[in-house]
Amino acid sequence: MHIYDIRNPQDIKHLTMEELEALAQEIREFLIESIAKTGGHLSSNLGIVELTIALHYVFDAPRDRILFDVGHQSYVHKILTGRAGRFSTLRQYKGLSGFQKRYESEYDCWEAGHSSTSLSAALGMAIARDLNGEDYQVIPVIGDGAMASGMSMEALNQIGGEQRNMIILFNDNSMSISRNVGAMDVAFTKLRTSRPYTTLKSDLEQGLSGTKVGRSVLKGMKNVKNAIKDNVVNTSIFGEFNLDYIGPINGHDLPALIKVLQSLKHHRGPIVVHVLTKKGKGYPYAENDKDGKWHGVSQFDPASGQPLARVPAGHCSWSEVISRIVCDLARNDRDIIAITPAMKSGSKLDNFAREFPNRFFDCGIAEEHAATFAAALAASGKRPFLSVYSSFLQRAYDSVNHDIARMDLPVVIGIDRCGLVGEDGATHHGVFDISMLHAIPNLILSQPKDADEARALLQEAFAQEHPFCIRYPRGNVPYTKGEVQAPLGTWERWCTDGDPKVCVITYGGDVDRIREKALANHFAIEVVNARYFKPLDEKMLDQILYRPIPIILYESDMLDGGLSSAILQYINDHQIDRHLIRMGIGDHFVEQGSIAQLRKAEHIDINSLFSTIEELLACD
Amino acid sequence: MHIYDIRNPQDIKHLTMEELEALAQEIREFLIESIAKTGGHLSSNLGIVELTIALHYVFDAPRDRILFDVGHQSYVHKILTGRAGRFSTLRQYKGLSGFQKRYESEYDCWEAGHSSTSLSAALGMAIARDLNGEDYQVIPVIGDGAMASGMSMEALNQIGGEQRNMIILFNDNSMSISRNVGAMDVAFTKLRTSRPYTTLKSDLEQGLSGTKVGRSVLKGMKNVKNAIKDNVVNTSIFGEFNLDYIGPINGHDLPALIKVLQSLKHHRGPIVVHVLTKKGKGYPYAENDKDGKWHGVSQFDPASGQPLARVPAGHCSWSEVISRIVCDLARNDRDIIAITPAMKSGSKLDNFAREFPNRFFDCGIAEEHAATFAAALAASGKRPFLSVYSSFLQRAYDSVNHDIARMDLPVVIGIDRCGLVGEDGATHHGVFDISMLHAIPNLILSQPKDADEARALLQEAFAQEHPFCIRYPRGNVPYTKGEVQAPLGTWERWCTDGDPKVCVITYGGDVDRIREKALANHFAIEVVNARYFKPLDEKMLDQILYRPIPIILYESDMLDGGLSSAILQYINDHQIDRHLIRMGIGDHFVEQGSIAQLRKAEHIDINSLFSTIEELLACD
Repeated sequence: MHIYDIRNPQDIKHLTMEELEALAQEIREFLIESIAKTGGHLSSNLGIVELTIALHYVFDAPRDRILFDVGHQSYVHKILTGRAGRFSTLRQYKGLSGFQKRYESEYDCWEAGHSSTSLSAALGMAIARDLNGEDYQVIPVIGDGAMASGMSMEALNQIGGEQRNMIILFNDNSMSISRNVGAMDVAFTKLRTSRPYTTLKSDLEQGLSGTKVGRSVLKGMKNVKNAIKDNVVNTSIFGEFNLDYIGPINGHDLPALIKVLQSLKHHRGPIVVHVLTKKGKGYPYAENDKDGKWHGVSQFDPASGQPLARVPAGHCSWSEVISRIVCDLARNDRDIIAITPAMKSGSKLDNFAREFPNRFFDCGIAEEHAATFAAALAASGKRPFLSVYSSFLQRAYDSVNHDIARMDLPVVIGIDRCGLVGEDGATHHGVFDISMLHAIPNLILSQPKDADEARALLQEAFAQEHPFCIRYPRGNVPYTKGEVQAPLGTWERWCTDGDPKVCVITYGGDVDRIREKALANHFAIEVVNARYFKPLDEKMLDQILYRPIPIILYESDMLDGGLSSAILQYINDHQIDRHLIRMGIGDHFVEQGSIAQLRKAEHIDINSLFSTIEELLACD
Repeated sequence: MHIYDIRNPQDIKHLTMEELEALAQEIREFLIESIAKTGGHLSSNLGIVELTIALHYVFDAPRDRILFDVGHQSYVHKILTGRAGRFSTLRQYKGLSGFQKRYESEYDCWEAGHSSTSLSAALGMAIARDLNGEDYQVIPVIGDGAMASGMSMEALNQIGGEQRNMIILFNDNSMSISRNVGAMDVAFTKLRTSRPYTTLKSDLEQGLSGTKVGRSVLKGMKNVKNAIKDNVVNTSIFGEFNLDYIGPINGHDLPALIKVLQSLKHHRGPIVVHVLTKKGKGYPYAENDKDGKWHGVSQFDPASGQPLARVPAGHCSWSEVISRIVCDLARNDRDIIAITPAMKSGSKLDNFAREFPNRFFDCGIAEEHAATFAAALAASGKRPFLSVYSSFLQRAYDSVNHDIARMDLPVVIGIDRCGLVGEDGATHHGVFDISMLHAIPNLILSQPKDADEARALLQEAFAQEHPFCIRYPRGNVPYTKGEVQAPLGTWERWCTDGDPKVCVITYGGDVDRIREKALANHFAIEVVNARYFKPLDEKMLDQILYRPIPIILYESDMLDGGLSSAILQYINDHQIDRHLIRMGIGDHFVEQGSIAQLRKAEHIDINSLFSTIEELLACD
């Protein structure tokens, strides 16, 4: 059957085992070909082709609820629920989402993007089902990295207590994005290498005998015995959480998967089904990847595995710039320590880890713990650099407030992927951190416009005795090595051509983008680089605010509580008569698309800014 | 030895076992007598008298780091580190803190107030120690409720991976504030009831023979064998986290505690010491408390156990008002579900739990999970009421943003203990939630001025198809049953006497306080009840803002990002020429004291407001 012909999972239920295996092969080829063109999450989806087929073959979605933790491994699920035809629009503006989305399909019962919400969600669904007197299965599919996160364990704690019907598909590939760390991984390894699952208890026979595939599975079964509760229960980490356990099962053995899932269809209480999968399965480049390079990819050549887009000469990613500078500083300061919550590769800390293995710590998917751990290092005289993506820092709000800022500890927080991130969409845009953090006392908040300023801000950061946040976006920047200064709470400004008629206050890479366009077009404007969100440069603000020319606040984050909001409070409290023209993201979540498209849709593209400037100059 | 004579832990190291036990008795009596006068955390401190004595007897603080999770059970530690003389000022303005505070003593190496930070902190300290080539022990003391929280498990995951020297004192009293819940408690019970710890491995003899107490302990030992690694390791939840384990040990058996801790002084790697304690030990009222009524107490009569302060007739706590209204609504709506993260008693949900046992869920100390669990219930058609203290909701920021608000799910969030809470101090003031939440799209934010308005807002909340936060403070309020309306995004206003000369915009209980004082003093002011922080009442704002009388924004939370900040953005974006006089909490953390004292210190007491009003009226 061709995957474009699949309208819904009913269409695969009458296939033979051979046809299902052919389908798996076809899906793999489709995924590689399709993601090579659009970019997307490759490895994790290649890893669960058979598992997803088995789930939809055995269970009856959307009645049964299948929810994918994080959600970026739901591509096969999308194909099996009639969305193959839309894959050419994957992750594009108005296109197919790279995650489960409730508005996209009735088969998507939950949405995520951040890790480790699926177990909490599954419990909520299971309890709603029971209260309504309904009867269906709830099936969260969760990886081993996400399983070891605190929020998952909080959910397991209540799931083990509640004992509601639920099948937890533990998709164990021994990786988060990079390799896993910590004691849980040791516990999982004990299970991975334990007596493998082979046979099932006898009442399974009935369950299997009803279908064609089931009968062929049964035919091949020799020793049928009670392997469920027997297997590892009570000696495994899951046993400690009061959960039944079965496994490990080869996640690429479709007959075995189907056999086990059939047997569990009417299982009472929560059970963990431990499935061993291989990230990148079937695509050698991805299979051999240990660092997570094939986790999320941009367009590539399927034959060679080479990315199509290349970083311009002399440029590197913002993460890379920050990481190199932190490495430089760490060479001269033995107290500098780098910390990542499972984002070593994404945050480009590989080099730091190689050069300073004793001073590098990957905490796993554990943002809260990572931030409080950093606080304690700082309280002990160390100079931790905590690197976290903006949208994941949301998990650590309390650690930043209650631990780092309240004790006024000098942790340097690198807020990576700030602003709009593009194709990952609403769950990943790093547009809330300024609003979220601005009211927290003692905290310094900054963003550099380029690599030189990043160096200056990081030098300033490590010289402070206070917590210091430096935010930087996705994307590339020239890696320059000039020496500039960025003293605490100071901004910069330039007039582009003669006496300024309009003042634009902005931050980050937009500073130079606006200057360059103004210079090229001979617009007489002043551009202010507000590199500190907190503290504000009050001296410069006074000079700017009392001048009778229009002021545009050009922001690329949430307007509410952002830079302009801080300035408005300053204006009010200093009795200044002044309005700002504010451009930024309004009171709504922003969906997926290229950053350029999203900026345009939000009316915060540079052209929209210059239209506004032109109107103001025309009025003048 | 009299406890007032203890200058530091050195003073107890030469005591005999009999003297130590007498000291324990003296400390208990002191705690009961002293807390009866000041209020404070009684039960948890009575529970660890022997444990704390043993710790300071065996280890050498401040060189060895002893840190108490949450910190409210550090009273005995304070007594043993020379602070008994200050207990009459406990939790009072400028007085002794009820938590560990670094500025208070060199023996306080960490500060907390929120649960489950001690393990992350201990790991940070242990790693700093190792990097510096130093050699001392790090000893977090953590309860069973806090141990089952996600953040603790994230820390255990890395602690088990890192294998640094650390002694985790697992203070197991089978309670958080109320009884514990969930699977972890089942796992702990397995340990509690396992073969109790009796003897130690032989090399312990040496460790013990050096001291007087040690020698007397040794004398009594019959069968010395290797009981450490042997005991429960590899079959316990801690074994799964790759941690050594010893226990359970009777936490009120001082010789046994000293014996075990002596033996572990130079233990390599992390070990969990499981100590069974009884909350409230030695004070029968507290010992028999199953609901957490003796966890944190106000002044009481030691003989009768009766509280000295009584709630005025017809009044009840805000928590109680909200809980009763939710119960009323739940009787007519079978979909209403109440959820608490381990705060059943504090949030006064006991009645709900009794009346609707199937619709009440205590998630344990797990704010993140609780909020996402609520989101899933809402996504499944239920109407969850999630009750969380404001400062603990900080833990759930991402769940509120990424799960509840992004999916626009109708969860009603009761934000309890908002605003200044008084004696618990900086870690507990609920002053950040407006700033933290305001920028999150889809979220409705409100606060009632009295019980009638609370009912109206809750009716409105459960009628919405969007997330709805209703915040309410600590303290009491008349429990009235009038029928009023509070339609979404509407405010109210009153002129107190003739044409208003000043407008005061405020919220919560201050609305009526200000009205009454203005009426009594014949001040011609307008009082606006801004019961919705989001959305603002724009219609009323337009009427107010264009009028040429001064406007005071009187807030009891952080100014930055609060109500006035939202109004300033509205003023700017509507090109209105208007300044506000803003009163609220400035850019700093607020310490402990009575709410009245703290308001005065922050210049947000009613008298300060009326001084400002008088000045404005005089100018008029």
